[in-house]
Amino acid sequence: MALVVQKYGGSSVADASRIKRVAQRIVATKKAGNDVVVIVSAMGDTTDELLELAQQVTPLPPGRELDMLLTAGERISMALLAMAIANLGHEARSFTGSQAGVITDSTHGKARIIDVTPGRIQGALEIGQIAIVAGFQGVSQDTKDITTLGRGGSDTTAVALAAALDADVCEIYTDVDGIFTADPRIVSAARQIPRISYEEAMEMAACGAKILHLRCVEYARRFDLPIHVRSSFSSREGTWVVSDPNTEGNEMEQPIISGVAHDRSEAKITVVGVPDKVGEAAAIFKTLAAAEVNIDMIVQNISAAATGRTDISFTLPSDDGAVAVTALKRIQEQIGFEKILFDDQIGKVSLVGAGMRSHPGVTAKFFGALADAGVNIEMISTSEIRISVIVGQEDVDPAVTAAHRAFDLDVDQVEAVVYGGTGR
Amino acid sequence: MALVVQKYGGSSVADASRIKRVAQRIVATKKAGNDVVVIVSAMGDTTDELLELAQQVTPLPPGRELDMLLTAGERISMALLAMAIANLGHEARSFTGSQAGVITDSTHGKARIIDVTPGRIQGALEIGQIAIVAGFQGVSQDTKDITTLGRGGSDTTAVALAAALDADVCEIYTDVDGIFTADPRIVSAARQIPRISYEEAMEMAACGAKILHLRCVEYARRFDLPIHVRSSFSSREGTWVVSDPNTEGNEMEQPIISGVAHDRSEAKITVVGVPDKVGEAAAIFKTLAAAEVNIDMIVQNISAAATGRTDISFTLPSDDGAVAVTALKRIQEQIGFEKILFDDQIGKVSLVGAGMRSHPGVTAKFFGALADAGVNIEMISTSEIRISVIVGQEDVDPAVTAAHRAFDLDVDQVEAVVYGGTGR
Repeated sequence: MALVVQKYGGSSVADASRIKRVAQRIVATKKAGNDVVVIVSAMGDTTDELLELAQQVTPLPPGRELDMLLTAGERISMALLAMAIANLGHEARSFTGSQAGVITDSTHGKARIIDVTPGRIQGALEIGQIAIVAGFQGVSQDTKDITTLGRGGSDTTAVALAAALDADVCEIYTDVDGIFTADPRIVSAARQIPRISYEEAMEMAACGAKILHLRCVEYARRFDLPIHVRSSFSSREGTWVVSDPNTEGNEMEQPIISGVAHDRSEAKITVVGVPDKVGEAAAIFKTLAAAEVNIDMIVQNISAAATGRTDISFTLPSDDGAVAVTALKRIQEQIGFEKILFDDQIGKVSLVGAGMRSHPGVTAKFFGALADAGVNIEMISTSEIRISVIVGQEDVDPAVTAAHRAFDLDVDQVEAVVYGGTGR
Repeated sequence: MALVVQKYGGSSVADASRIKRVAQRIVATKKAGNDVVVIVSAMGDTTDELLELAQQVTPLPPGRELDMLLTAGERISMALLAMAIANLGHEARSFTGSQAGVITDSTHGKARIIDVTPGRIQGALEIGQIAIVAGFQGVSQDTKDITTLGRGGSDTTAVALAAALDADVCEIYTDVDGIFTADPRIVSAARQIPRISYEEAMEMAACGAKILHLRCVEYARRFDLPIHVRSSFSSREGTWVVSDPNTEGNEMEQPIISGVAHDRSEAKITVVGVPDKVGEAAAIFKTLAAAEVNIDMIVQNISAAATGRTDISFTLPSDDGAVAVTALKRIQEQIGFEKILFDDQIGKVSLVGAGMRSHPGVTAKFFGALADAGVNIEMISTSEIRISVIVGQEDVDPAVTAAHRAFDLDVDQVEAVVYGGTGR
């Protein structure tokens, strides 16, 4: 008998009929002989509706009260889901984050889990009940106040509870069949990835793939907990995120590239004419850190000998743009740079693949494909298993398509390889 | 400095603008130098909407999960109210029933409060915060599950917390100016009652007056806690419910009758031809009790000597009618009665007044007024401070009007007395 943790997102429980369908899937898992713990998000647009109500009351809701408000959303969905399961003749009990033992720090709106003490969940499982747990929420260790975990919170709840319960698998249900080699809306030949490593899934999450949040994959890797990302609308196998995707009878050689991710949510700031002196770059990034701006890529040009000045470019979330520019303007005189350029018409395209480590030609092939597609590269950054480039926003689709094709990820090419054909 | 507990019902917090208005009233009470604890119901129709969602999922939601679902309602209203107060520059903290220390038994849907341990509320008050508490909800002592208190639950939360905190007053805000001598929709000359005893308020609540629930007045009487029933739409004084309404400078003689209550929600069942033997009535009411039917008035006719049989009539909530008739039919053969008559076209009209104790002519005057108005009396029941009659449903309005006039409760008559006139 296995212990299966399942997580259903808001679109999977958007109305009564979807809740009933999810209940059937949960009961089927239980009937197959498993213990089942389910983490559920708020129904459909509930969170947005609650935020809208808060905005009607005050432009600046206190974090503690906003968390109290938002956690009503999962309370509704989890109670309804437990009812739907009861209606199918199985015993289910819903638990708030606090009741499930999700202990966090006191940072309202983006609390971090610091302990999980799932005694009540274990008690429910021991007497054969299905446990339904509110995602996204916890209780602060110090103040005993209700907290929310912020972006990707429900996925993180699921992985954290699965780890604390020593579950066999954490199934993350979404509205697609798993993680794809590229966004199928851009690359129609994109195919589902059957197995991927934690590291690659983390790089893809960090580079804009929206299926799994970085935070939840990090958590799973720490506890070596398998994640199975799959669709709540089908019974097909999805994508397994595991420590070593090539074990367990998978004898094909690992592909060099696992997927192509993209992200249109960043902007680029260039600080022009920074005096080329020790400590100037440090002063700039210290200022940005104090303003709580998250920096992604950084490029510093070689100083022009004639002027003794250099340009520093970096990327950041577009939403942080105004804050960053304001913070930089305040230190313009002190640093003595010439001007600030802001560009949010950019996109990031990233190749991710553990096979890169042993294939030095990847960068050349990638850049060649982009050149052939007429795409100009503005910035470059790399990790051991990733190459990212910043391009103009209109070049994102052609760049993703070209890279996907160049690394033999298109679905018919792969089939050709599997069936011994020549490809095209 | 006083400690004021205020309770706002669902219509007072039905939308963002009303929540902001309630916040202003709360802040004004705080600014006047009081410690303030606020109990709040769910917004407007939220509870009905949640019940409708539950019905879409299952016709028979488990009580535990229904309570989990419904308590989301106050969670939303209390968080929004705390935000609205913060927006006015005052510190407020919202607390669930569980956080506020409302400990109940485990009867989901109609739990009883068995203890109140408001340590967190006291902590908030000590540092100058306004405490906002979810009405209607608690946590069970045994199972630690979330419970709801059933009808009148938020009023009961308010009184119970006020008692536990040793508050100076519990203000119950509603959409009218207090308790009236009769329903103003029936008697336009009805007037607001400035002060009334717990006993009279309890009798009026039990007889259909909808402003205060019996349960909350019982609780207040036990702790001798003054209740102030008033409108959230005006700043006028409302009705004070206290142990002795005639103290504190009120020198007018107590009126004989405080008010006329009515109730159209009951039905009458007559069990015809019950053998006049010891234990038959007991068997009937034991059966009804086992079916959880609440009996109100009971009348047994004198046995007709010729037949050795008698009729037993009783009133009960109309909603319990089907259950009661079914239960009685099951014992018809065993008891040997002839038939069951069911009539839900009845109404109850009650005179309530502590002055009745020392005025023996009240019954005669009441029945005389009803006779003059052409109202036929079907059943009669009395307590020390109340006389109730069952009449045809179409006779309720004329009976209330006639009784109100006969006992000098009409508003112009009272003014005449106060100003020394002759009345009319």
